[in-house]
Amino acid sequence: MKFTINRSAFTQQINNVQRAIPSKTTINILYGIKLALDNNGMTLIGSDADISIESHISVNDPLANLQIERSGQIVLPARLLNEIIKKLPQDEVVISVDDKFKATIQSGNAEFQIVGIDGNEYPRLPIIDLDHQIQLPTLTFKNMINQTIFAASNQESRPILTGLHLILEKDFLIGVATDSHRLSQREIPLKLSESSHNLDAITVPKKTMSELARIVPDNADLMMTLSNQQIIFTFENITIYSRLLEGNYPATDRLIPNSCETEIVLNAADFLQAIERASLLSHEGKNNIVQLDIQPDHIELFVKGNEIGNVAEEIQFVSSSGEALQISFNPDYMKEALRSFGDIEIKIQFNSPVRPMLLTPNENSELPHNDLLQLLTPVRTH
Amino acid sequence: MKFTINRSAFTQQINNVQRAIPSKTTINILYGIKLALDNNGMTLIGSDADISIESHISVNDPLANLQIERSGQIVLPARLLNEIIKKLPQDEVVISVDDKFKATIQSGNAEFQIVGIDGNEYPRLPIIDLDHQIQLPTLTFKNMINQTIFAASNQESRPILTGLHLILEKDFLIGVATDSHRLSQREIPLKLSESSHNLDAITVPKKTMSELARIVPDNADLMMTLSNQQIIFTFENITIYSRLLEGNYPATDRLIPNSCETEIVLNAADFLQAIERASLLSHEGKNNIVQLDIQPDHIELFVKGNEIGNVAEEIQFVSSSGEALQISFNPDYMKEALRSFGDIEIKIQFNSPVRPMLLTPNENSELPHNDLLQLLTPVRTH
Repeated sequence: MKFTINRSAFTQQINNVQRAIPSKTTINILYGIKLALDNNGMTLIGSDADISIESHISVNDPLANLQIERSGQIVLPARLLNEIIKKLPQDEVVISVDDKFKATIQSGNAEFQIVGIDGNEYPRLPIIDLDHQIQLPTLTFKNMINQTIFAASNQESRPILTGLHLILEKDFLIGVATDSHRLSQREIPLKLSESSHNLDAITVPKKTMSELARIVPDNADLMMTLSNQQIIFTFENITIYSRLLEGNYPATDRLIPNSCETEIVLNAADFLQAIERASLLSHEGKNNIVQLDIQPDHIELFVKGNEIGNVAEEIQFVSSSGEALQISFNPDYMKEALRSFGDIEIKIQFNSPVRPMLLTPNENSELPHNDLLQLLTPVRTH
Repeated sequence: MKFTINRSAFTQQINNVQRAIPSKTTINILYGIKLALDNNGMTLIGSDADISIESHISVNDPLANLQIERSGQIVLPARLLNEIIKKLPQDEVVISVDDKFKATIQSGNAEFQIVGIDGNEYPRLPIIDLDHQIQLPTLTFKNMINQTIFAASNQESRPILTGLHLILEKDFLIGVATDSHRLSQREIPLKLSESSHNLDAITVPKKTMSELARIVPDNADLMMTLSNQQIIFTFENITIYSRLLEGNYPATDRLIPNSCETEIVLNAADFLQAIERASLLSHEGKNNIVQLDIQPDHIELFVKGNEIGNVAEEIQFVSSSGEALQISFNPDYMKEALRSFGDIEIKIQFNSPVRPMLLTPNENSELPHNDLLQLLTPVRTH
């Protein structure tokens, strides 16, 4: 195995696949990147067994300038390979591997010899049937991930809640995440072909979704394939493979209230800043709670009675209707919910101090009403 | 106590004095910033008992727009005060303190109440005699700190070595730092008045010097005063007070060799990059050592025989004279020494594989010869 490649093109693809590589694993070979060369180009693979990222560099890629002298495959330590390639003195890198899997990396006057592992020992990726690909609206899909994923659970006690739940309908896709204290849901339009209509709902590990949102460019063509307890995303020269989470996702539909006793309309970004100020004090106290006092003509946010001090702020609002209400909640959950809306008018609906609050875009906001919703359980203070 | 101030001017000075505030201390009041108001303005103080930073905001400062309604003093929790002031909604901040030392911080609709401590309980700063101030060449002095301080020890077993040693002569100042494995020394010109001629050498804690180098602007007038086991630096509206380290600094003069058996001249920045590459592999092995093989016509840097691999690189040089030599050293110490020179030609002088290497600027470099020197003890490998 021997090839020549442009240093910065190589670094870029190493960085992409390295995102899947675990910082700690019991499977030693997964600390490595697999490099596989054939006549068409080089495939790089990184994996933590749950998620695998595969990147392909074609011999026709003018920036990579890949020249293959001998094909073959090897696994090299990922972190070290990345640092070496980054620090090499010249733009051109030559890598050759001998029959004992010792790799020689040469650039300018510098020559490294690194002990590698036979590429055949690396776990195989599933072979997938790409007949039923679903084209995703890339930017909208990325937004949907970022507007929901934070509400997924970090606790392995209910593994199914650590994922993003995707419900595929004829004309749209719904993403849902919940840790049982709060719930985020976004609906986006989607055109499915006839053959995909009978797809089930699935739950994807949150790490898969956040890595995807991080590495897929906004203007890339993004395709999704479901096959045999795996989900596969492809775009440009990258393929991301991930296992699905097993188990029954809770029926979250019935949690969303469809009436309310109190409703306020305000700017999400302004309210976020007030919550950030109030949380400076709630974080100092024993309980991380802020309180909201809603009157028809006055809305006040406050933290009181903790050992460091108090804070109170009158909140600017567009409208306030229905019953007066005092409600307490975790400001950190509220901050994440508010950030998902950006700088638009939102409606917050309440039923009682012990029932969930529903946040949705206001009717005259740019974001279509009901496409994005955030549900937040209050904290009982009495 | 009551005053009005511009938010961003206030934040800036809080940031300056907060640098002295310890993240952990047994003296609770030192988690606070002292604010003292009189008719002339406000003084802010932060301290970790060893170093104190004092900043003064004058009522005449047009950016601060400080208006004092009632003078007084208080100590408020530093981190919380900083975060609150940063996040307030308006440019104008009003702070008032009642007779129970509860501070009310008000800006726009937001109102915080924070429990403070009587300013009289805060430790007093020493009163200093500013008759014998020494004017420092600010930028050169900052460079001197950054080119030497890294060689000071981190080990409290010999406290005197954790400081930067300053020797004051009639026309110059010498800064020395050593951890007994390496030594850094820089001489800078200095004009002393007659009355300062009989000053002793002193040793200043490295934290004082690195904080000073970080906060003093390059173009500020920087003055130094020595008084009663304290050193005081003043510039603009800031005063830094620091204790001195007690004990006898070792006589380092005799450590610096004045002849050599082998001498090479090369570019410091190029050699630094080669050392950075080689250290990628030395860091993986049991011993963090790189080796240099010097021949009259060939210089090679290498790491060999460790479990991960080898690296070898032929080094570009300007000249190589004297005896052939193989020498081993810690690449991380060498990197810090090389960085102090920047991108210039340097001379490295050797006497034997077990005696220290001396790095100095080459005669035709811009940096005057011998003004900066780095001494590095090799590692014995046999």
